[in-house]
Amino acid sequence: MTEEIVTRRTGGRAGRQAARAHAAVARVPFLTRTLKPFEVLDEEGLSLIEHNADTILQEVGLEFRGDPAALTLFRNAGADVQGERVRFPRGMCRQIVQASAPSSYVQHARNPEQSVTMGGPHTVFAPAYGSPFVRDLDGGRRYGTIEDFRNFVKLAYLSPHLHHSGGTVCEPVDVPVNKRHLDMVYSHMRDSDKPFMGSVTTPERALDTVAMARILFGEAFVRDNTVITSLINANSPLVWDSTMLGAARAYAEANQATIMTPFILAGAMSPVTVAGAAAQTLAEALGGMAFVQLVRPGAPVILGSFASSMSMQSGAPTFGTPEPALVLYVMAALARRLGVPFRSGGSLCASKVADAQAAYESAATLQPTVLGGTNFVLHAAGWLEGGLTMGYEKFILDADQCGMMGVFVRGVDLSENGQALDAILHNEPGQHYLGSAHTLANFETAFYRSDTADNNSFEQWLEDGSQDAPVRANKVWKRMLASYEAPPIDPGIDEALRDFIARRKASMPDLAS
Amino acid sequence: MTEEIVTRRTGGRAGRQAARAHAAVARVPFLTRTLKPFEVLDEEGLSLIEHNADTILQEVGLEFRGDPAALTLFRNAGADVQGERVRFPRGMCRQIVQASAPSSYVQHARNPEQSVTMGGPHTVFAPAYGSPFVRDLDGGRRYGTIEDFRNFVKLAYLSPHLHHSGGTVCEPVDVPVNKRHLDMVYSHMRDSDKPFMGSVTTPERALDTVAMARILFGEAFVRDNTVITSLINANSPLVWDSTMLGAARAYAEANQATIMTPFILAGAMSPVTVAGAAAQTLAEALGGMAFVQLVRPGAPVILGSFASSMSMQSGAPTFGTPEPALVLYVMAALARRLGVPFRSGGSLCASKVADAQAAYESAATLQPTVLGGTNFVLHAAGWLEGGLTMGYEKFILDADQCGMMGVFVRGVDLSENGQALDAILHNEPGQHYLGSAHTLANFETAFYRSDTADNNSFEQWLEDGSQDAPVRANKVWKRMLASYEAPPIDPGIDEALRDFIARRKASMPDLAS
Repeated sequence: MTEEIVTRRTGGRAGRQAARAHAAVARVPFLTRTLKPFEVLDEEGLSLIEHNADTILQEVGLEFRGDPAALTLFRNAGADVQGERVRFPRGMCRQIVQASAPSSYVQHARNPEQSVTMGGPHTVFAPAYGSPFVRDLDGGRRYGTIEDFRNFVKLAYLSPHLHHSGGTVCEPVDVPVNKRHLDMVYSHMRDSDKPFMGSVTTPERALDTVAMARILFGEAFVRDNTVITSLINANSPLVWDSTMLGAARAYAEANQATIMTPFILAGAMSPVTVAGAAAQTLAEALGGMAFVQLVRPGAPVILGSFASSMSMQSGAPTFGTPEPALVLYVMAALARRLGVPFRSGGSLCASKVADAQAAYESAATLQPTVLGGTNFVLHAAGWLEGGLTMGYEKFILDADQCGMMGVFVRGVDLSENGQALDAILHNEPGQHYLGSAHTLANFETAFYRSDTADNNSFEQWLEDGSQDAPVRANKVWKRMLASYEAPPIDPGIDEALRDFIARRKASMPDLAS
Repeated sequence: MTEEIVTRRTGGRAGRQAARAHAAVARVPFLTRTLKPFEVLDEEGLSLIEHNADTILQEVGLEFRGDPAALTLFRNAGADVQGERVRFPRGMCRQIVQASAPSSYVQHARNPEQSVTMGGPHTVFAPAYGSPFVRDLDGGRRYGTIEDFRNFVKLAYLSPHLHHSGGTVCEPVDVPVNKRHLDMVYSHMRDSDKPFMGSVTTPERALDTVAMARILFGEAFVRDNTVITSLINANSPLVWDSTMLGAARAYAEANQATIMTPFILAGAMSPVTVAGAAAQTLAEALGGMAFVQLVRPGAPVILGSFASSMSMQSGAPTFGTPEPALVLYVMAALARRLGVPFRSGGSLCASKVADAQAAYESAATLQPTVLGGTNFVLHAAGWLEGGLTMGYEKFILDADQCGMMGVFVRGVDLSENGQALDAILHNEPGQHYLGSAHTLANFETAFYRSDTADNNSFEQWLEDGSQDAPVRANKVWKRMLASYEAPPIDPGIDEALRDFIARRKASMPDLAS
C-alpha cells in the first residue's frame, strides 16, 4: 500500500491521562499536495471576478439581518449602513480580512496525532453534513437517529482516509431539536479522537459546543488554540441572517474557526453563469469573513463555497456537472489570492443510491476539489440525493476515493528507485518484470490498494456471488463497526462532559425546533 | 443545453451524391480545450524522463522481431543493429520523429462535417476497442457478434459526444477471424459517417482496409489525405513484433495514421513505478514512431500510452488508481514536448458491471485524460472488465460523461453575459433569480443536461420505479437504436464496397485465427 499507515498513539491531555492499552487504528495523514493547483482563469480573469465582487459589495451591498451589533461593527469600520443593508467601499472587506485572518491554522484534536492543518498545500477530508435521512442496503432510506450519527462518527474515526470527524454527519431526529447538539458534540468527542465541528443552529448551541470543548481540552488550551471549526452558511443572495451571525460570533469570540459559506444553487440564489456565481460568492464570503475579523481580529476563518447547478425543468439541484466544477476552480484560486483557507466540494451527487450516477457525479466533484487545491473538504464521504441522505455504502466507497486522492497529490517519485532505470537496463526485451528485484522490493507499496474494488476475473467474481460495489461496501462498514473500540478518554473528563449535558438537558423542555 | 448542437448536413463525395433527405442527428464538435493542461512534473522532471528513455534506447535498445526490412531501415538511419536488437544513439529517434511527423492532422470522415483534427488543443472521443464480450442488462455477458458490432457503430454514430466510430468496438466472434475485418470496416463505412480505425491483425487486413477506403473516398483523396487512424501496440517490454510492424507499414505507406502504443501493465511489462513506466513507454513509442517516419516521412503518427496498475496479489490489471493517472499526465506532457498528437486514457475500469466501481474508476481515468490534454481518446465509452467486455449501458453512461467534458474544457465565459454583473446589481438581497431576465435569457444553455442522471425528488424517483443508472441507460440505448437511420451513401460506392468484400471473402477459406 502506498498510504503511509501510522500507528496511533494515545496523546493529548485526555490521551496522556488514559492508561489502558488501545488497539492501533490505521491512519493516513491529511494531504499535503505537491502539485500546483489546476487553474481555469488567468490573472486577468481572476481580477475581473474580484472587481465585480467589489462592485456588488459597493453598489448592492449585503444585508445583515436581525443583528444590530453586526451593523454597528460595520458602521464603525467605515461601511455605509442603511437599515440592515451594508455597502462597502471598494476593497474594504478584503483589507479587513487580509489584515488579521490567518492564512492557515491548526485545528487541534484531543489526540494530537489527529490534529489537522487547514490551509496552504493541505487538504483535509470530512464526512458529509446535514442529512435528515440515512440509507443502507439492508433498510433502505429512513430518518437518521443518534445511533446512525454515532455509527458515522465511528466509521470516520476508523477510516484512514478521513481526517476529520465532521459535524452533523446526519440529523439524529430521535433526539429533541434543542438538545441533539449536545449528543452530537459528545459523540464526536467520545466516539472519535479526530477534530470536529460545532453546532450552529442557534448561538446558544454554539456556546454549548465551546463549553464542552473547554471541558475536553481545558480552558487555557481553548483560549489559545483552535479546537472547533464550524459551518456558517449565507442566506444567498447577499444575506447573512441572525442565527448564523450569532453562531459565528460565539465561535469567533472564543477564537474558534468558522467557514463562511455562500450556499449557491445557481439560477436560484445567483445568476446561472459561472462568472456570475463566483463574483457573488466572493462578495458574500468577503462580507462574512470581514464580520468575523471585526468580531475578533485573528480568529481563524475559511472561505467557503458551495455551488451547484440546477435542473431548469424541475428546479432540482444537479451535481457533477461541468459548471460547478468551474466555479470551484475559480473560488479556490480567489481564496489563494485572498490568503485564507478554502472549503468546497466533496463527493456530491443527486443520485438516490450508490450507483454509477452517484459515483460519476461524486468523482466529477472530488477531482476538482483536490486538483483545485481545496483545504477543507466537507461532504467527502457519504453524500447522496443532494445531501438529503447519508449513505452507509456510499460513505465506504467515497472514503476509498479519498484514499486514492491522497496518493495522487504526492505526484511522481523521481528518486533513483522511482526512476527504476537500473531495473529497465538490466531487463531483456520481452522479459516480464514480475520477478525482478525492483518489483519485489516495491510491490507492497507500488499501487494504491482499494478496499472496495473487485479486480478479480469474471469467473472468480461470479463464484463470489456477482457482488456489485454497494454489496461489497455493505460488508466493509459492518466489519468496521464490529471492530470498533472507543479511543481512550480521561474518565474524569468524560464524567464532566456527561454532567454538563445532563444539566443542560434538564434546564429546558424538549422542543421540536 | 450548453452543447452546441449542430444539424448534420450530408456532404463529402458520398454524401453529396446522396439525394434523399436524411433526419438530422445531433452532433457536438470534437473538443477544443481552452485550459492549459494539468502538469505533474516540471521541466526538470520531464527532461529526466526523456534522458532515461534515451538511455534505454541507447543501452538496451528495442527488438523489432520478424521484420528484416525494419532492421535495414534503422541500420541505414544510423542505429546499431545486432540480430533483431536495435540500439539508438542518444536523440536519434527524437530527431527522426521531429523531422517529419506532423504535430496534428485531420482525419477525414466521409461526411466532412464529421472530420476531426488530431493534435493541438483538440480532444476526440472514440468508443472502447477490442472486447471479445458484450454485456447488457437483459442478456448479461456473452460473446460479441457482428450484430453487436453494428449496434455499437450505430450508437457511436447517434451519440453527439463521440466524435469517432472507433475500430474493433467489439469482436464479432460469429464471423471467421480472417474475414471479420471486412465486415467491421464496412460497418464503420456504411452504418456511420464518422471517422474510423482500420484492421491491424495482419498486414493483409490493413491493406484490405486501405483498399476499401480508396473505394469510399476515391484513390486520389486517400493518397493526399488521412482517412484511417489505426492502433499499433508494442509487445512491451521493448519489443515491436512483425504483425504490428507490418500493419503499421501498410498504413504508413498509404499515408494513413497509426497510434504507436506501448501497452503497459506496470509491474509486468514495466517496473512498478510511475517514472519507470513513463521512461519505458517513451522509449518504446519513440522507436515505433521513428519506424513509421522511416517508412514514410510525414505519415501521421500518434504517441500512444496505455498504462494500468495491477493487483500485486492476483496480477490482475487495476484501473482508476492514482498511479496510471500520473503516468498519463507525464506522457501527455512528453508528447507535447515531442510535438506529436497523444492518445491515452478513456473510461477504463476493472468492474464487471456498470456500478459505482465502474463509474469511479472510469471518472478517475477520464478526468486525467481530458485535463492532461489527450488528443485521441480510445475507450471513451463502453469499457468494462479491463477491456474484456463492451457494455451497452456503460457506453451510454460514459458518453454522457464525455459530453460534460466537452463543456468543461471551454472554461469560464467572461463575456458581459457570462459575468452577469447587471443581473446581480439589479437583484435585491434575498430575492431569488428564477424569474430574472438574465436567468430566462440563459436557462436553456446554462447547464449541461445529462440524459442519464435522475435529478428528481426521492418521491418522484420512487414513483418512477426506483431505477438506478444502468436501468435508465438500458432504455436510452434501446431508444437510440430504434430511432437509427443509416446515413446516406452513394449506391454505386456501396455496391463497390460489397463487391470487394464478397471477392475477398470468396478468395480464402474460413480461418479461426
